[in-house]
Amino acid sequence: MTAGNQQERLDPQWVTGFVDGEGCFHISINKHPRMTMKWQVLPEFRIVQHSRDVELLREIQRFFHAGKVVVNRDDRKELRIRKLNELKMIVKFFERNRLRTRKSKDFKLFSEVLTSMERREHLTSVGLRKIANLCWRMNRKVKPRYLDSSETLRRKPLSERLR
Amino acid sequence: MTAGNQQERLDPQWVTGFVDGEGCFHISINKHPRMTMKWQVLPEFRIVQHSRDVELLREIQRFFHAGKVVVNRDDRKELRIRKLNELKMIVKFFERNRLRTRKSKDFKLFSEVLTSMERREHLTSVGLRKIANLCWRMNRKVKPRYLDSSETLRRKPLSERLR
Repeated sequence: MTAGNQQERLDPQWVTGFVDGEGCFHISINKHPRMTMKWQVLPEFRIVQHSRDVELLREIQRFFHAGKVVVNRDDRKELRIRKLNELKMIVKFFERNRLRTRKSKDFKLFSEVLTSMERREHLTSVGLRKIANLCWRMNRKVKPRYLDSSETLRRKPLSERLR
Repeated sequence: MTAGNQQERLDPQWVTGFVDGEGCFHISINKHPRMTMKWQVLPEFRIVQHSRDVELLREIQRFFHAGKVVVNRDDRKELRIRKLNELKMIVKFFERNRLRTRKSKDFKLFSEVLTSMERREHLTSVGLRKIANLCWRMNRKVKPRYLDSSETLRRKPLSERLR
């Protein structure tokens, strides 16, 4: 926190309640020809707010010592955390400070994916498939494109492809 | 809290953070022929959630000992608090537990309207106009219909009506 900042530090329980309302744990799997598996797993934690509350996003950024505040779209800003070591710290925080909405289910899946990435499983086709299936259970249950990609189909056993 | 409830009591700071994200302080002014002023001032505090989190709404209801959980629309439920004595208690809670988003501005206006109603100012045309102007500054800054009603226009000084 900067010396000039007059506001007291945020309360961890306030942060947890606010994230229960406004936070998002998200994982995308994007095509990326230069990566080992041709697909990139991109975990992200974000909080989106109207730009009038950008100062609050910066306070949360200082609270976590992580992420950056960027434009989301139009008049919306987001605190976005993508670095793996910062995300691991976020996971530890929410292990200590339990989320109470159904977002806690997304959080658990998110945490599983991070553990999987730490074990470098996302660099194998079996691991990547496992991660994609975890993502499919998250948020709005959108099936990752990876699961319908030629890379995945090629690797499926014949019996599964014929179903 | 019921005897069978296994969950610990909510933390006031968690509740504050959650309300900063998901709560809504709202005042409507509706035409109501049987009321003294023909218009009814209806202050309301609500939290809307997907029905999968209805149990959490009930926990918040038990936390405040106030309100009821009802259908909002489709698959959404809301905790709705409308009773004046319960709303006064909510105001006291958020005076002790400061909201941090711009919602705190709505809260202050909401609190001013409640004070005004306690003084029974909503039963006079001057008071009702004052309340309507406070409402106009809240939420999405929608002008209350009352301010354009014949009751208001009739009572405005000529100079104002000719503007």
